[in-house]
Amino acid sequence: METPTAAEELPLVLTLFPFPSIPKIKQEFSKKFTTILADNSIPLHQFLSTNSQSQSVRILISYPKTPINYEILNCLPSLGCVLTISTGTDHIDLVECSRRGIAVCSAGSLYADDVADFAVGLLIDVLRKISAADRFVRAGLWPVKGEYPLGYKLGGKRVGILGLGSIGWEVAKRVEAFGCIIAYNSRNKKPSVPFPYYSNVIDLASNSDVLIVCCELNEETFHIVSKDVMAELGTNGIVINVGRGALVDEKELVRCLVQREIGGAGLDVFESEPNVPKELLELDNVVLSQHIGGITSESSAAIHELILANVDAFFSGKPLLSLVKNY
Amino acid sequence: METPTAAEELPLVLTLFPFPSIPKIKQEFSKKFTTILADNSIPLHQFLSTNSQSQSVRILISYPKTPINYEILNCLPSLGCVLTISTGTDHIDLVECSRRGIAVCSAGSLYADDVADFAVGLLIDVLRKISAADRFVRAGLWPVKGEYPLGYKLGGKRVGILGLGSIGWEVAKRVEAFGCIIAYNSRNKKPSVPFPYYSNVIDLASNSDVLIVCCELNEETFHIVSKDVMAELGTNGIVINVGRGALVDEKELVRCLVQREIGGAGLDVFESEPNVPKELLELDNVVLSQHIGGITSESSAAIHELILANVDAFFSGKPLLSLVKNY
Repeated sequence: METPTAAEELPLVLTLFPFPSIPKIKQEFSKKFTTILADNSIPLHQFLSTNSQSQSVRILISYPKTPINYEILNCLPSLGCVLTISTGTDHIDLVECSRRGIAVCSAGSLYADDVADFAVGLLIDVLRKISAADRFVRAGLWPVKGEYPLGYKLGGKRVGILGLGSIGWEVAKRVEAFGCIIAYNSRNKKPSVPFPYYSNVIDLASNSDVLIVCCELNEETFHIVSKDVMAELGTNGIVINVGRGALVDEKELVRCLVQREIGGAGLDVFESEPNVPKELLELDNVVLSQHIGGITSESSAAIHELILANVDAFFSGKPLLSLVKNY
Repeated sequence: METPTAAEELPLVLTLFPFPSIPKIKQEFSKKFTTILADNSIPLHQFLSTNSQSQSVRILISYPKTPINYEILNCLPSLGCVLTISTGTDHIDLVECSRRGIAVCSAGSLYADDVADFAVGLLIDVLRKISAADRFVRAGLWPVKGEYPLGYKLGGKRVGILGLGSIGWEVAKRVEAFGCIIAYNSRNKKPSVPFPYYSNVIDLASNSDVLIVCCELNEETFHIVSKDVMAELGTNGIVINVGRGALVDEKELVRCLVQREIGGAGLDVFESEPNVPKELLELDNVVLSQHIGGITSESSAAIHELILANVDAFFSGKPLLSLVKNY
């Protein structure tokens, strides 16, 4: 006689990528929940509409690669909560979730330290040409080529921060220790912040040597670093983007870099990831990375813990952690 | 009738490399001094012993590539002052200079900020794998290769600083802003410094995740980062060297890196520059640069000003700036 397996009775969690990937959490997860992993070789909508379990999914664990829109939500009638491993929620239709009473939880400020570290790492790298030097040495050029272009000092550089949220604030604390002069732009002036505020990004750019882009991507901030902003930043100006690719007009950025209308860039994010404009791959005044600003061994452990805690909280009717509130 | 040219009457300055390289300073220099540039295609000793002007050289502008020893000093009987563009003076026989009444001036702490910035840049780069990521993206691997090894968070890392002079102190200020935990080793405990002091480098290493090497190179500090120190640092430990190559036992370092007995290294200096051990060129857990830690557009301008000021002071009998005192 067959007894129903415990797994059939456990609440259903849909995940869009292999999660959990940490053995200890994996074990705990599998004891409490049944996890369905979406098949990424077909569109999510197709996967869901052909899978009968979709009807019973209570929680969706998502990431920025896959938009969670009206069509997807329609396939998940029992959904109560969307979790994302990212800080940004621009891939989730928050209004539609709200309308359906679906809670949304992000990573909150979990990655703020790591992204800020990475932003400062990119800034030092671009100004002091570290990756370029590493290429130079690895290519065996040191003994044969005397000349190497001079880098630039961090101290005294005017750093304009776009978005003084948790990441921007951590960036500010760090670059201050290098003697940089800080100003910022954000939706509103922050009353308790000692740095000069510019309500207009053009004005911030014209008073900055460096722009560090770490604001949220939304309709207002799309292409916030525009052609005009880059023109104000000038020929020695540096753009560091650790936010989202579409915060910067990438086509214009590439043109400005190629034509040396700005000085350099450190880019962890791109408009059409994983595609990086091929013109950038040849430039020595840019540093490129594959959207890893927030990813460390430590933050990976922390997001696992946070997601587990949120799934536990959801199913036991307790308050969710890192609930997205602004919608 | 020929009149003696003004140049013949100007005081003689010997420089071992093209100096000044900044047009404004070059112009001022040539008005006041006659500069002889050593021929680097032959040994300095040979150049000096076959050049009659050697007898009249009053000032020598040097750099770390060329040792200024007994033999060289013998060829320069009128020498009154050795200037070096470096902070370190390990290439100059200070005892012999002292015996002959020759003043020695270094760059003092002129490069401290830039070297500290670079050290922190190397540290972030090694922990967060920035140069390796840049290589990954430039090689077009992002769209095709999903997996990338996780980097590590700066916050909470125990950073041991070897040498808490002007550079070490600036490093401490910077890494503190990232949430690192600082300890140090130096000749003596510094009474006014809040960080734990270790009189023994082995003990410092066993209590550190990262060693940042920025002490002076002398007989006591040669290979201060020894095999035993690296063993204490352990398999996740990181070595950052922005001091001098010979502060680290390079052969052991290479072995430890290749055999993964330490976690990684950021190296701006090497034992036999410009030669970099070829095993390092293939490793993804190292970041390499060509002794540019102190070199920026800004520090280059500053060292030009300092050297001009010292040469002026010497010939007008005024006190020298950045005189090396400890001998």
